[in-house]
Amino acid sequence: MTNFTYHNPVRLVFGKGMIAQLRELIPAGVKVLLTYGGGSIKRNGVYEQVRQALAGHEVVEFGGIEPNPRYETCLKAAALAKAEGAGFLLAVGGGSVLDGTKFIAVAARYGAGDPWEIMEGRKPVTEALPLGAVLTLPATGSEMNTYAVISRDSTGEKLAFGSPHCYPQFSILDPETTLSLPLRQVENGIADTFAHVMEQYLCAIGRAPLTERLAEAVLKTLVEEAPKVKARPDDYEVRASLMWCATVALNGLLGCGVAAEDWATHMIGHELTALYGIDHGRTLAVIMPAVHRYQLARKQPRLAQYAKRVWHIVSGDEAERAAQAVAKTEAFFRSVGVPTRLSEYGLDAEEAGRRVAERLAKRGVTLGEYGDLGPEAVRAIIALAQ
Amino acid sequence: MTNFTYHNPVRLVFGKGMIAQLRELIPAGVKVLLTYGGGSIKRNGVYEQVRQALAGHEVVEFGGIEPNPRYETCLKAAALAKAEGAGFLLAVGGGSVLDGTKFIAVAARYGAGDPWEIMEGRKPVTEALPLGAVLTLPATGSEMNTYAVISRDSTGEKLAFGSPHCYPQFSILDPETTLSLPLRQVENGIADTFAHVMEQYLCAIGRAPLTERLAEAVLKTLVEEAPKVKARPDDYEVRASLMWCATVALNGLLGCGVAAEDWATHMIGHELTALYGIDHGRTLAVIMPAVHRYQLARKQPRLAQYAKRVWHIVSGDEAERAAQAVAKTEAFFRSVGVPTRLSEYGLDAEEAGRRVAERLAKRGVTLGEYGDLGPEAVRAIIALAQ
Repeated sequence: MTNFTYHNPVRLVFGKGMIAQLRELIPAGVKVLLTYGGGSIKRNGVYEQVRQALAGHEVVEFGGIEPNPRYETCLKAAALAKAEGAGFLLAVGGGSVLDGTKFIAVAARYGAGDPWEIMEGRKPVTEALPLGAVLTLPATGSEMNTYAVISRDSTGEKLAFGSPHCYPQFSILDPETTLSLPLRQVENGIADTFAHVMEQYLCAIGRAPLTERLAEAVLKTLVEEAPKVKARPDDYEVRASLMWCATVALNGLLGCGVAAEDWATHMIGHELTALYGIDHGRTLAVIMPAVHRYQLARKQPRLAQYAKRVWHIVSGDEAERAAQAVAKTEAFFRSVGVPTRLSEYGLDAEEAGRRVAERLAKRGVTLGEYGDLGPEAVRAIIALAQ
Repeated sequence: MTNFTYHNPVRLVFGKGMIAQLRELIPAGVKVLLTYGGGSIKRNGVYEQVRQALAGHEVVEFGGIEPNPRYETCLKAAALAKAEGAGFLLAVGGGSVLDGTKFIAVAARYGAGDPWEIMEGRKPVTEALPLGAVLTLPATGSEMNTYAVISRDSTGEKLAFGSPHCYPQFSILDPETTLSLPLRQVENGIADTFAHVMEQYLCAIGRAPLTERLAEAVLKTLVEEAPKVKARPDDYEVRASLMWCATVALNGLLGCGVAAEDWATHMIGHELTALYGIDHGRTLAVIMPAVHRYQLARKQPRLAQYAKRVWHIVSGDEAERAAQAVAKTEAFFRSVGVPTRLSEYGLDAEEAGRRVAERLAKRGVTLGEYGDLGPEAVRAIIALAQ
């Protein structure tokens, strides 16, 4: 196990009817900027619950934060927060609204200069408006971490940042709010959650026995619960499990003591979304099996552990078990309803590989737990996803 | 899954050499009361590391906090903290030192009246001195929770309390500090950790699929790592795993969404320690198998799940598998080196049962996940532990 610091002060408020607790969770007397996305919260009753709980607060609203939240939109919201003197940001929606709101929180307190400097890693975050969340889509884990991913129109970039200043003070997770989600978003959320766990777990370097088993616990729960959500879309218990999985998947716990993580799938996936507009969760299902196939030899022991503990694969030699495990990962994504090949999106892997590799190379990014996957490796990985 | 709130703001600083971080973790300019136990920290080098890291701070010391920390001792420390104007408490030692320090933190800020009122549940905790910890013995989980157990000479009581004011601001866990522990303390710590997980997991009521799997992850890791600590007492990696297990076992995570917990083992165990002086961890190994045998029918489905997922028991009907699982629990404790029968302590179960039942009845306490185990059940459980 490597040394680590774990500090996650988010207050997680989980369950039916918990939105009413907003009343006590937001400090009295503070002006609230309520941020949301395309308006689904106005159709599924969440907006009403939130406004009722905030009856005692002065509230300004900013709607229209996009999936893959845009820098340009967030700047408008930050200007509104400043102009209105908002003292608290409340994100109501999925990971995109929450990610956007984290950036708004930083931008609203950013001094001279362009807050995009933070996305480029050229400036640190030194402060942010306090924020909280009512989550309506389990997927990104943003409700209990410091990270956000923001896209910028003018440059076509999609970049991530994180800062302890961006921890939500609280996140309310009522699984009932997820019952009305379009199936496609549920599928994407499961793929995203599965990928988050795997990217911390499926690495070639080091050992962290308990943390690995905690990761396997999330994977096994996803494997067990995912089929149920289609069979019984109204089952609260299934929705609750999926929501709890998504949070645990990326709240820092599964990185404790882990020597190295392999976020190649997310990094390549972000580029595919930026270039071709494929849903984030769907890019991961295309790229992850390819990342593992490309590094089959290096990752063999951990893949064999995953094969045994998650998929009960015990026959064949280690190399065969590792290969079977990758096939199982791909089959899982497909069973969830998510395609796993670029060709299913009508894309040519050679062209996509060239473009993604170029974009990453331009930023000087190399990938994988060893940090040694450069443009050639990226092209080879994407070729395996044809 | 039941509704829950999870909020654990403890900063966990884990690994080799991390004690040096004390320098940054304790606010500058504050006077520190350093609390410790019997002085083992002065023999194993921990004290030196701590004092070196605190070179820039004014430090007062209070040693001599006992295993099963005594109310009377804690009051002396609280008086010292007040007299010296200490602004921060630093507990250096095991769970007892940390538990005692939590009570000292409360007592040092307690107004008129006797802080024992808090232990009796007659008064709430409204404030406490800030505290931090350098943990040297993995067992109680106190490093990342709000709980403390305190014993009182004059009444022979051993009671627990908890308050969010008692979260350590940070806990430093360097597994190297545990390499010099007497084997008996290591054994006790493993038993305590295993019991903490089981008391949240092995309940008859409700389902929380992911949380159950997270609990099983800790149990499986303990089953795998415990034999190694005897075979390779100098193995840092094994010590690190055990230490991380103890923290995860009781930091709130394994209670998330759990409908009811069954702390009967700890409650009865505390009485056996108060009455007969048996080490805390050892009382649990005696009582837990008996608690499960007594409630075999009620707990049967969860015991069968535990049988399968932790012990790979798949033969026999559900009742048989449940019974086999209890036998496995008892065999695990014995394999760790911890006795599992009262007779091994020269005690008569009938007399012990009568005395424990009387003491719990006097406090109006009933036990178990249904809260329906009264004096008769307690006597019957203890009889099964003969």
